[in-house]
Formats: sequence, C-alpha cells, structure tokens
Amino acid sequence: MAEIIVQKFGGTSVGSVERIAEVAKIVEKSAQENNIIVVVSAMSGETNRLIGLAKSFGENPNKREFDALVSTGEKVSASLLAIALNQIGIKAKSFSAAQISMKTTNNFSKAKILDIDDKKILDTLADGYIPIITGFQGITETGDVTTLGRGGSDTTAVAIAASVKAKQCDIYTDVDGIYTTDPRMVPNAKKLDAISMEEMLEMAGKGAKVIQIRAVEFANKFNVPVRVLSSFEQGNGTLIYLKDDNNMENALVSGIAFQKDQVKITLHGVTDTPGIAYQILGPLSDENIEVDVIVQNVSVNGKTDFTFTVSEEDKSNAEAVLQNLKDVTYDDLIIDSDVAKVSLVGVGMRTHAGVASTAFKSLSDNEINIQMISTSEIKITIVIKEGALESAVKALHSAFELEK
Amino acid sequence: MAEIIVQKFGGTSVGSVERIAEVAKIVEKSAQENNIIVVVSAMSGETNRLIGLAKSFGENPNKREFDALVSTGEKVSASLLAIALNQIGIKAKSFSAAQISMKTTNNFSKAKILDIDDKKILDTLADGYIPIITGFQGITETGDVTTLGRGGSDTTAVAIAASVKAKQCDIYTDVDGIYTTDPRMVPNAKKLDAISMEEMLEMAGKGAKVIQIRAVEFANKFNVPVRVLSSFEQGNGTLIYLKDDNNMENALVSGIAFQKDQVKITLHGVTDTPGIAYQILGPLSDENIEVDVIVQNVSVNGKTDFTFTVSEEDKSNAEAVLQNLKDVTYDDLIIDSDVAKVSLVGVGMRTHAGVASTAFKSLSDNEINIQMISTSEIKITIVIKEGALESAVKALHSAFELEK
Repeated sequence: MAEIIVQKFGGTSVGSVERIAEVAKIVEKSAQENNIIVVVSAMSGETNRLIGLAKSFGENPNKREFDALVSTGEKVSASLLAIALNQIGIKAKSFSAAQISMKTTNNFSKAKILDIDDKKILDTLADGYIPIITGFQGITETGDVTTLGRGGSDTTAVAIAASVKAKQCDIYTDVDGIYTTDPRMVPNAKKLDAISMEEMLEMAGKGAKVIQIRAVEFANKFNVPVRVLSSFEQGNGTLIYLKDDNNMENALVSGIAFQKDQVKITLHGVTDTPGIAYQILGPLSDENIEVDVIVQNVSVNGKTDFTFTVSEEDKSNAEAVLQNLKDVTYDDLIIDSDVAKVSLVGVGMRTHAGVASTAFKSLSDNEINIQMISTSEIKITIVIKEGALESAVKALHSAFELEK
Repeated sequence: MAEIIVQKFGGTSVGSVERIAEVAKIVEKSAQENNIIVVVSAMSGETNRLIGLAKSFGENPNKREFDALVSTGEKVSASLLAIALNQIGIKAKSFSAAQISMKTTNNFSKAKILDIDDKKILDTLADGYIPIITGFQGITETGDVTTLGRGGSDTTAVAIAASVKAKQCDIYTDVDGIYTTDPRMVPNAKKLDAISMEEMLEMAGKGAKVIQIRAVEFANKFNVPVRVLSSFEQGNGTLIYLKDDNNMENALVSGIAFQKDQVKITLHGVTDTPGIAYQILGPLSDENIEVDVIVQNVSVNGKTDFTFTVSEEDKSNAEAVLQNLKDVTYDDLIIDSDVAKVSLVGVGMRTHAGVASTAFKSLSDNEINIQMISTSEIKITIVIKEGALESAVKALHSAFELEK
C-alpha cells in the first residue's frame, strides 16, 4: 500500500463550487502517487453565517446547540467535495466526525480531541475510496457534537495524520507558504522553503495565522511533518520539519511575527511577597485569559511593578479579575491599549549571541522605544507602541537581511 | 408522566429566525400540558439551495453524498429551534437522525424507515428536555446518511409518534387545515374539522399537498391520530381520525382533490392476450414510474385499447419503456399531455348511491367532456382536458354543496 498523505483544505480553498472543483483536481493528481485522506473546513463565510443565525436569539446561545449548528458547515463542504470527485471519476466518500468516531472532550466550542477510530478511514482507503472528513468537529462520549474552536480543522488534519501514521500532512490555504514576516507589511518578505517545528510554534503562537498553533503542537508531539501550501497556485509551500529531520544550517532568525490588538497591564507598587505572581496570574488563568509577555522588575522597598500583556478581547474581563484580587495589594492598575508585540524567532539564536543587541540597535536607530522585553531560547519578544509597529518590523526584517 | 404529543413544523413554519421564535412559543405553550417531541423540516428554501449546490458539478450527483449534503438543512433548523427554546428558558436538545439511530433502507433519496431507537428520545424527555429531531432523514445499517424524499419530515414525525405511542401527531404547516378542495381554485372551499384517515389517504394520493401520503399510510398502519394545523395563526386545524374513533355521520363527499401535470398514454390496438396488463405495467413499475388511472376497454376482434395516466415528469421515461416492450404488440402509442385529474373522495360513498351520477350530471351541465373514469369504494376519479379543470372543480364543489 502506498504511503498516506493527509490534505487539509481551508475555507477559502473550498469557498465556492468553482474552488471545490479545483481542489478535486489537486486531490485527483495527488491520488496518483499516494493514498490521500482529505480534511475540509467549511466554505469561507459559512461558519460566520451560522454563528450569526445562532446569535439571532440572544448573544449567548446554548453551547451544545451552537456546536451542533456550526458543525453543519463542514458537512456541506465535505459532501460537495465528494460529489465533485465522484463527478470526475474519483471514488470518494464524505464522513462526519461522528461517522469516524472522532471523540473529544465535552467542552463545547473548544473541545480537545481524545481519540480517533481510524479503522473506518483505513477501510475506506482499502476499498479504493478517498475519505473526505469534516474538520473542526468531534463528538463526545455520549454522541453530542462538539467543535474544536476556530482553525480547528488544522488540528483535525494533523490528528488524523498522526493516527493513520501518514508520511505528511499538507495544509492547503490561500497563501503559498510561511514568510519571514507578513508580506502585507514588508513587501520584500521572503517565503521560507522550510522552518523547524519549534520555530513554527513560536511564530504561530505570536499571531502568524497561517496554521493553528494547536495543530503544530499536535504535529510536534506525534512527529507529523506538515507542509503549508496554496490551493490557488502551484508551488512547494513551506515544510515544517521535525527536530532531527533537517541538516541545513539553522538560520539565525527565521522570521518575524507580530501582533496588534494587545493590552499592556501594569500592577504598580505591588507588595512583594512569595507567590505573588501566582496570586495575580492564577485567577486570570481560571478565567481562560491568556497572559503573554510577563515582566516583573526587582523590588524596591518591598514593592515591585508587575506587567504583562493580554489580547484586546480579554481586556475588560482581565480588568474585572484584577480589581477583585483577594490576596494582592497594589497602588495602581495601569492599562495601556496602545501597544503591539514583535517577535524574532530562530533556532540559530541558541548558538549565536548578538541577536538581541542587533535587534535593539536596529530599533534604536529608528527611534523606536522598547517598553518590554521577554526572551526564550529561540525567541525575543519586544513590546512597543502600536503606531511604531510597521517601522519596527521593517527595520528588524532588514537588520537580519531576511529578504535575501 | 403526561401523555406525549409529537409536533412537526414544516419549512415555512421555520423559514426564518422570526418564525422559529414563534414556533418556540407554540412549543412552550404545548409543553405546559403534554410531553412534547418536536420534528422539524429544513428552513424553507434551504433544501433547494443545497440541491442547487449539489448539482453544480453535474446533473446526477453521487447519491450517498447528495443525501449527506441535503440532510444538513434539518440539522440547522433543529439546533436553531433548540437555541430559541433554551433562550426562553425551555430546556431542549436537538438530535440528528444518527443520534437517535433512525435506521432506514439504503435507497438514497427515497429511503424507508426501518427502526427508531426511542430510548434516547424517552430518556431525554425524562430528563426534562424537549427533543428536537431532524425530519426527512435517517442512517443505514453502516451509518451512511439517507433522506426519505420530499415531504419526508411528515413521515419522520408520524413514525416517531408511533414508536413512542404518542396520543397524537400535530403537523404544523402554513395552511390552517384540510379543505374541501384547494381554496385558491374555489374561494368558498371550506375547512374540514375532521376527515377520516381513509379519505385523507385518497386526498393526499391525488395531490392534496398538505401532508405527505406516506405519513398518512404510516399513521393509518400504526393508529396514530394526526392533526394538520397552522403555525401562523391559532386554530384547531383538521383532525385526521382513525377508522373507529369518530361517530359523526359520514359526509357523502368530503373533498375534491385534483392534479395537473398529468399525461394520458394510450396503447391503441393492443393484441389482447392473457397477462397483457402486467406485460405493459410491469416494466413501468420496474422503472419506478407510478401509473395511476388505468382503463382497459373491452376488446373487439382480439384487439383492445389500454389507457393510463402518469405524471408529467415520468413522461419521457415511460415513453422509452413502452417503445421497448418485448411481448406486447400494438398499432399506435398516443400520448396526451393536455389532461388533468379530479377526484371526489368520501367515506359516505360506500353506503350512498348516486354520487357518480350527480358528478357526471354536473360536469355535463357545464359541458365538460369526461375522458376516463375510475372508481373505488370511497373515490371517483375523472380525467378531463386540463383547460376544463377549474370549472370542473367549481362545478363539483357546488354540486355536492361542500361550501356549506
């Protein structure tokens, strides 16, 4: 039996019947060499249409029913693609998450995949059919339909690839690969032929929206090589390779990710006692507020400043949590919405000094003030004023010669 | 436990979010007195939209995938109604056919219901939730999604009512009940408070489109009283009562059904041998062509004329079958599309003579020529020129004083 490749097509790739016909041709061609399993998103716009319907009765529709409703979008695109394939003589069968027993936790709208019954998928392949599977959804132990959250189709694809031991998972989208940074901001940004899974994790986590971070985590955990490529034009896309798969010399900096819509929150004059970070961040985590760059200065006279960023949408929620903190005393709560984050990502940073200083010099030369800095082994994140974002990204892109 | 009533809401009843909110109110009110199980159709227009999508790749989409696709319409309306009910404080859960194991045959697009697992439905009721079930669909033994054919949601509702031994099945639609004939043709047509199941079978079979004939057959077989009523206005609708449930004197004629888009086919000069009817009709039946009014004249000189009607959509298919008949010889094949059928239906005909002669006199007085006549115990069907249909229906309606 030929090797298996999982191909995932996103919303714009199946956004119209014409697009679906194009996808059918891609699948037809790939099926000449490999066993293909397809995962599809809903047609672009459809999920938003369904969400609109759900919210027409009130802002907070019943969670179980909300998932049952929005999960219909992928059922439509999966059967349409199966129709298109059969029409050109390629045997294909669509399957809902329920039909392949894609079991998840019962957290509606953000369920996590627990288990896949790959027997039905493999039997379907063995029977000579291409399985077309609905992304983004699953079922609970009791058969209720769940969804995995926005972008969850990527995770579905990688999870299936892991389950059937596919040699690769191809994520088809409307861009032709991963770039050194967003080409809409830096016109000479360069497409990467390959990027390490670790770097991709840092890129995705910081707002590179090409692929969902949970999907990369899944791929990393189960050793599934992932390729990101375009369904609109030919090309090899960008391979996201596993740790030891690639011998090429690691680039110092592979890419620059950035994120607007950030809020910087400072608790000024916090009484510094042991466990203070947990006492502040624990209640935020309990509310599912994701805290990002965290900086705590050394304390002076038993008091310190504690600063972190959250995304704009969590702002009011975070504010409420902080105002009700029980065991923390502080002088001021300062909230600044006029900030953005820029991250330099590169495995090469591990072994090369000087990345940080090059970055800081470049920003300084451009008179961009750095508000916060946070570093990890393969990443440097800098918080700046939102208005300075574009010139910062351009300056850094040029300083590390990423256009070459 | 209170008695169970199954309520089915058709496409126009759930045609918009505003309509769904109205349906939620009807369910809320009914649930104060009885245990309610709801069955829904797709929002009006949605099934046609999905069929259009399916056919955008070719006129004959893969049958399995076609059913998987169009069945999503009811999933949307079921979860939307569940959302609307939860929003007003009524606990409700939507279920797809798969979730309640509504097993059918594997004839895609015209599957027949085999079995329902009513445990999930009854458990849901016992837990205090109103089950909202997708009409029109089922699953095969191997888990493929099927649909029951147009209007199949009525059948779903009656089948569920039979399975859970409901005291009644209410079919909510956009008309307020069954009329003596179509009010669009005869303005003083009268709504019937009740009609016998037998009469309804004859009415539905002849084109009264208020309720699907298979649903009435199901109701008849499993003794489920059915009520047809409007979701747009208050009223008691029309009760379709079981044979021995009703003591009121049977009307001579309860209603007049009619059907346009008919084709009259005559095999002229057929050599009359034993079994000739079967040799003609058997091959038509094999092609799923439904033959209706059949007339065979006495034979003269060993030759006879054999005439029957089919619906317009089967015309070319029927013609092909007849031209390839192996064991039948005839002189001419005459096809006449300019015909319509009118049927008088009434249980009272059984015991009262004179219905036929009153009908024929009325048509004669109006100079309407009768082309074919076929009678059963409770029905007289007449085939006339299509152009004479309206005056025929009006004349008969008046002759039997149905407006009173």
